[in-house]
Parts: sequence; structure tokens; C-alpha cells
Amino acid sequence: MLKVPEHQVAGHLAIDGKLGPLVDDSGRFYKPLQGDGRGNKELAFYESFSSDTRVPDHIRKYFPVCYGSQLLEASNGSGLLHHLVLQDIVSSHRNPSIMDVKIGSRTWYPEASDNYIQKCLEKDRRTTTVSLGFRIAGLQLYGGKESGYWRPGRKEVQSFTVYNVRSILRRFVSSNSSIGNENSDCSFAPSIYGGSAGILEQLLELKAWFEDQTIYHFHSCSLLILFDKESVSKGSASVPEIKLIDFAHVVEGKGVIDHNFLGGLCSLIKFVSDVLSDSKESSIKDCVESEKPGICTDNGNCQ
Amino acid sequence: MLKVPEHQVAGHLAIDGKLGPLVDDSGRFYKPLQGDGRGNKELAFYESFSSDTRVPDHIRKYFPVCYGSQLLEASNGSGLLHHLVLQDIVSSHRNPSIMDVKIGSRTWYPEASDNYIQKCLEKDRRTTTVSLGFRIAGLQLYGGKESGYWRPGRKEVQSFTVYNVRSILRRFVSSNSSIGNENSDCSFAPSIYGGSAGILEQLLELKAWFEDQTIYHFHSCSLLILFDKESVSKGSASVPEIKLIDFAHVVEGKGVIDHNFLGGLCSLIKFVSDVLSDSKESSIKDCVESEKPGICTDNGNCQ
Repeated sequence: MLKVPEHQVAGHLAIDGKLGPLVDDSGRFYKPLQGDGRGNKELAFYESFSSDTRVPDHIRKYFPVCYGSQLLEASNGSGLLHHLVLQDIVSSHRNPSIMDVKIGSRTWYPEASDNYIQKCLEKDRRTTTVSLGFRIAGLQLYGGKESGYWRPGRKEVQSFTVYNVRSILRRFVSSNSSIGNENSDCSFAPSIYGGSAGILEQLLELKAWFEDQTIYHFHSCSLLILFDKESVSKGSASVPEIKLIDFAHVVEGKGVIDHNFLGGLCSLIKFVSDVLSDSKESSIKDCVESEKPGICTDNGNCQ
Repeated sequence: MLKVPEHQVAGHLAIDGKLGPLVDDSGRFYKPLQGDGRGNKELAFYESFSSDTRVPDHIRKYFPVCYGSQLLEASNGSGLLHHLVLQDIVSSHRNPSIMDVKIGSRTWYPEASDNYIQKCLEKDRRTTTVSLGFRIAGLQLYGGKESGYWRPGRKEVQSFTVYNVRSILRRFVSSNSSIGNENSDCSFAPSIYGGSAGILEQLLELKAWFEDQTIYHFHSCSLLILFDKESVSKGSASVPEIKLIDFAHVVEGKGVIDHNFLGGLCSLIKFVSDVLSDSKESSIKDCVESEKPGICTDNGNCQ
């Protein structure tokens, strides 16, 4: 019944006898409770969060539903282990393109040990975390039936520069992403990043909450961005989604906003809106150059 | 002609034979060019900034005017030294209450040396920089003719906790600030923090620019908040001001927003708007409790 998730792009994988999350066919995701208290902290977060009436409904949809915990056979054969039972976000998508973006210009928190802080700081400086306020922790791009998925390895992902990140945010919404060229067409940008139900609007809704909420500080938490390219190509109703995941390092906000998360989120928003503006501009240019009698619509297409 | 500034609340003071800034009677502020290249970096910033057409006029007003540099006798008697010639922001205020707030949850920048980063990080963790995304670097509160100014010493300022910062942001706009009690009345909050020309609106205007500008990253830069309590009490037209100062550690933005400054600024905005909301609520309470037949106006006063 339980199996290794097909579309996991970051974190520990339940392969080669290792410990990792599992999924079932009913849309549930089983995440083994991590040792050294982190698993219990994440479970405690979900419990506190799901009963917290201060969290508005329009924000709650950006978090996976949690169904408590359950004892299950661990994927590494070590026997029964407590697992967090979560909504399998990916299960509703057929060929999902997914990006896991770790938000914040630091992944450590003030209360942590000096050792932990130095370890995180080193990685934050080595990746784009310090410079961009976020880093891509993993991704897969669906290129179509023939080319399948592009899923760069962990080492490649960890070496992404600012330039790479900008280029990946373009390739993520391009019809020619699979060939890995530098001239991504960004043809899906208007329908994925743009529009009233697009990624940008969702990020802005989340941002408005972070400008005000002082309940939680989300350290080392990831934002998943996912969509189904085939649905988009076919004009289907499938909407792009964002979800926050990984809450082992959430601490109380104590009346202060999560300025670390918010700053990084604003940086990501700027990158996404840059891609969207560029794609609109180049659409207008295309319309003009092709001397079509049509006009450019709001979503960047020629009419 | 040149003298030690009367209202300098942070930084090196030109007293006891030490090197520090000087002012004249015509509203100019002379800042000695700091050694190890920092002075030249600050001068270079002002030169680049003042000719940068990408900076809109409504943002330019938040920076002191720079009149170039000038050779002057240094305050420590070491002879002629280059000084940055700036607008003396404080000169237009009679009895200014001033707060110097260093913005950002880190004061170091990625390109700095490991030693410099460790030194900054240590201070950032010791102060409220990491927890709040900003720290108060100095302040003076004018209490009236009799009580004069409250200006805490450097050590006291450096030991401010989150609790202290919140309390000072209340005392800063209270009529009973000089007695240092815990029940600051925040009676000036509606006219200083609130209103269309108040501190909050100015901070929000600056924030909107920081959400978009990718030209500069302002590390270890301060935001001065200043106003003249006597003018406010007398209902004069003197408006509260914010100004950015200290640009020795500004680096190029290279297409990325200054998420470190922006996050800290948003945190400060939340603190200021919390004080404002509280003061409005307590005004309404006062109106109700005093059973006045009046109503509470938008600026929190009873009518």
C-alpha cells in the first residue's frame, strides 16, 4: 500500500534502505518523525496551528492538512516508527513541475546553539540564502511525454548562483524548458505566475499576512510552488499552487513579525514579477514584430 | 564657527580630543572621512546616489543633501582632514526628540571578511538586531523646559531588549516620557506616528520603494526619526521627519532587492503601528469612561 513518493524533490528519500517519507493511494503523505526532537516539534507545530483561531482561513489553505501521527513500518526497515500524517499535496497533479524554495536570509534562529548557528550560517553563505533571501532546495520540471522530467541532483542544486536561480524561475514557466537553453520563452508565465489565481497573487496574499502576523517565526521552512504543465497547455482549470512545508524549526513570534521570512518572500516576489513583466514585454514585441492585426491581451497573448 | 553637534545621539562624538563630526550655523554637518576606506565609500555612495536618475524625488527627500567634501581642521587636533559636507538634519528643529534606528537583521554583507562578519554577528545577536530586524543605536527624548533631555548612555542603549524597544517607541510619543514610567500615555502618537504626513506614512512610502529597488543594499545604515515636541504641543506646522544616514557599507544591489533592510523596516512599521492602534483604542476607552458627550476622532482625540 505505502510507496516512495514519485515527485519528492528535496529532503531525505526513502530509497536504498534509508529513512524517508511514504505515500499511499488515498492522498496521504507519511513523514517519519525526525530524531533529536525535531519530529516532535513539527508535530507540535501542526497541532498548535490547526487549532489556532488567529490564523485566517484564506491563509490556512497554504498549509498541508495534518491528520495527526501514526505508527508505521519505517522505510529503512528499522521497525515501527511514528509518522506525521499529512495531505499529499502532489497527488492531485498528474505531471507536476515543482520547486522547493527555502525562504529566509538565515535558516538558524536566535535560540539555537552556537554550533548549529555556525553550521547553518556556512551553508547560508555558500548558497543564495544570504544574497537572495531564499534558496532553491530542489526542483523538477516536466518537459513533456518525450523528455520527461528535469530533476537536478542535490549537489547541482546546492551550487545554484543568483544567475541560475533567475534562469530557473524563467525555465520553470517555459515551453522550451526541457532543452535547457538560455532563451526560455516564458510562454506559461502569464497563466502560471500571472492572473488572479496565479502564483504572484498567492505570494502577495501570503506576504500581507506576514506583514502582520506575530504568532510564528518560520525558520528553515520551504515554499513549494507546483503546477501541471499539461493542464495549462490544454487550457484546463488546474490552478498553480503554493504550499508551506517543513516546520521543525518554527518558534513563537512573541509579538514580533517574522521579518526574516518576510524579507525573503519579498525578494522571491520581485523575481517572479520580473519574469512576468519580461514575458509581457516580449509578447508585445512579438505582436508588433509579427505585424499581426491583433492586440496583446492582459495575459500576454496576441489576439 | 564650527562646533560639536548638540543633538548627536549615536556614533563617534567630537569631545575629549576625539575625532567626530562638526556643525556650523548655516545648517551644514561635517563628517570626517573615516579611515580604512569607509569614508571614501560613503563619499562615493553620495556621489553615485545624487546623480542616479533611477531614484525618484519622493524618495530622495529621505536622504540628507550632500555638498561634496572639504578639508577641515579635525576635531582631535590631528590637522587637516577630508570631511563629508552634509545637510544638518537636526538644525531645523528646536528641541528635537531623536531616535537612531539601525535597520536590518544583519549589519554585515556577504562580501565582507570572515573576521568582520563574526564581529558584526556577535553584536547583532547581543542586541535586538537579529530578533527584531533592527536595533536602537541611540536616542534623546525632550521632556520639557524643566526636565530637559533624556539621553541614555551607550552601554544602556546596547543592552536594550525587545521589551525596552517597545516601551521606548511608546515613551517617544508620550507627554509623560520624562518621568520614565511604564504607563506612557502615547498622547502624541496620533500626531507624530499617525496622520497623512506622520512617521508611519513616511515609513510605508520608503517600504514601497524597497520592495522594488534593486540598486543599493544598505548595510548597517540608520534611520533617524525626529520631531519637535514643543511644536506639536503648540499645534505648530512642524512635521515629524525620517532620514536615512550612514552609508559606509552600502553595496550594489545587482538586481536583487535589499530584503535585509526591507524585513527590518517592516518589523519597525509593525511596532510603530501597534503603538498607534493602542493609543487610538485607549483614547476611545477614555472617551467612553469619561462619559463625554463627544465622539472619538480619527486621530484619537475626543471631540
